[in-house]
Amino acid sequence: MPGYTDQKDAHLRRLRRVEGQIRGLQRMVNEDTYCIDVLTQVSAATRALQSFALELLNEHMAGCVVDAARAGDEQAEAKVREASEAIARLVRS
Amino acid sequence: MPGYTDQKDAHLRRLRRVEGQIRGLQRMVNEDTYCIDVLTQVSAATRALQSFALELLNEHMAGCVVDAARAGDEQAEAKVREASEAIARLVRS
Amino acid sequence: MPGYTDQKDAHLRRLRRVEGQIRGLQRMVNEDTYCIDVLTQVSAATRALQSFALELLNEHMAGCVVDAARAGDEQAEAKVREASEAIARLVRS
Amino acid sequence: MPGYTDQKDAHLRRLRRVEGQIRGLQRMVNEDTYCIDVLTQVSAATRALQSFALELLNEHMAGCVVDAARAGDEQAEAKVREASEAIARLVRS
Repeated sequence: MPGYTDQKDAHLRRLRRVEGQIRGLQRMVNEDTYCIDVLTQVSAATRALQSFALELLNEHMAGCVVDAARAGDEQAEAKVREASEAIARLVRS
Repeated sequence: MPGYTDQKDAHLRRLRRVEGQIRGLQRMVNEDTYCIDVLTQVSAATRALQSFALELLNEHMAGCVVDAARAGDEQAEAKVREASEAIARLVRS
Repeated sequence: MPGYTDQKDAHLRRLRRVEGQIRGLQRMVNEDTYCIDVLTQVSAATRALQSFALELLNEHMAGCVVDAARAGDEQAEAKVREASEAIARLVRS
Repeated sequence: MPGYTDQKDAHLRRLRRVEGQIRGLQRMVNEDTYCIDVLTQVSAATRALQSFALELLNEHMAGCVVDAARAGDEQAEAKVREASEAIARLVRS
């Protein structure tokens, strides 16, 4: 499915950018960069990770949750519970 | 629908508890309570609010989102997008 | 100390506003307001609580932590540890 | 200063672990791992980043903020404001 491949590529690009931010943090620590500047970069990496998670969750609801809703009550309930738990972990992390 | 009334009562009880926590905070500020103790109470009230939001979101997905998924693609898409935006606001608040 | 009284009044005004938001949430639940609109209001109340906490923390550092730093190493260490723990609770709530 | 070198090594180890988590996420996306499992790993990486930030902030207060408090009112005020802004970015990310 080409649409899926496009999304997958977008996810991988995004994660490689986060990986670059984490390597940037290592360089900053190595070079004794001022704490506050390191913290600013940590906030940026955290936000990038959260955006990736929100994007993934959106796709999950549009795909798996909608399919499960159409498959029946039990399937819907199980997928909604699972998604709710994942959202709770994100909100609390 | 009795189930809904039960949930509504549970929500109202939960929110009255949060209201009590906020009034407790006002009392603490009024009595010059030590900052760190006030902050601990703010964290507790914030967590209580987040739990209420997660509960509400869970019900919303089990109800509105599942119904929309069964009503058709357009309805599903609209409700999923709306839920995703609400989740993003929660994660970022 | 007039400055302190001013801050206290500002804190109390802010908390009364949050209390109003929580009462607004009860009204919304009572009137069966659409979930997503309730969630938007929860996000607003959470942000208001977080702003109050950040303001309080700022004052605490400018007051207690600075005083402790000047009082000696042990006092400084104790206050910094205590503030760090309060910040961790806020970040994780 | 050996103490500082030790902390620096601990920071770098921690960040290399986060980098490993981000690379693990890329592998998961590449292998079409189930969304919810990817989200669990994102939450773990986010928490690891937040712990690093809290550790760094603690050191910053124990070092720079305490030193500034001892150097004078202006220095103290500037460092406290800067730390408060960094904390606000963390709480909101």
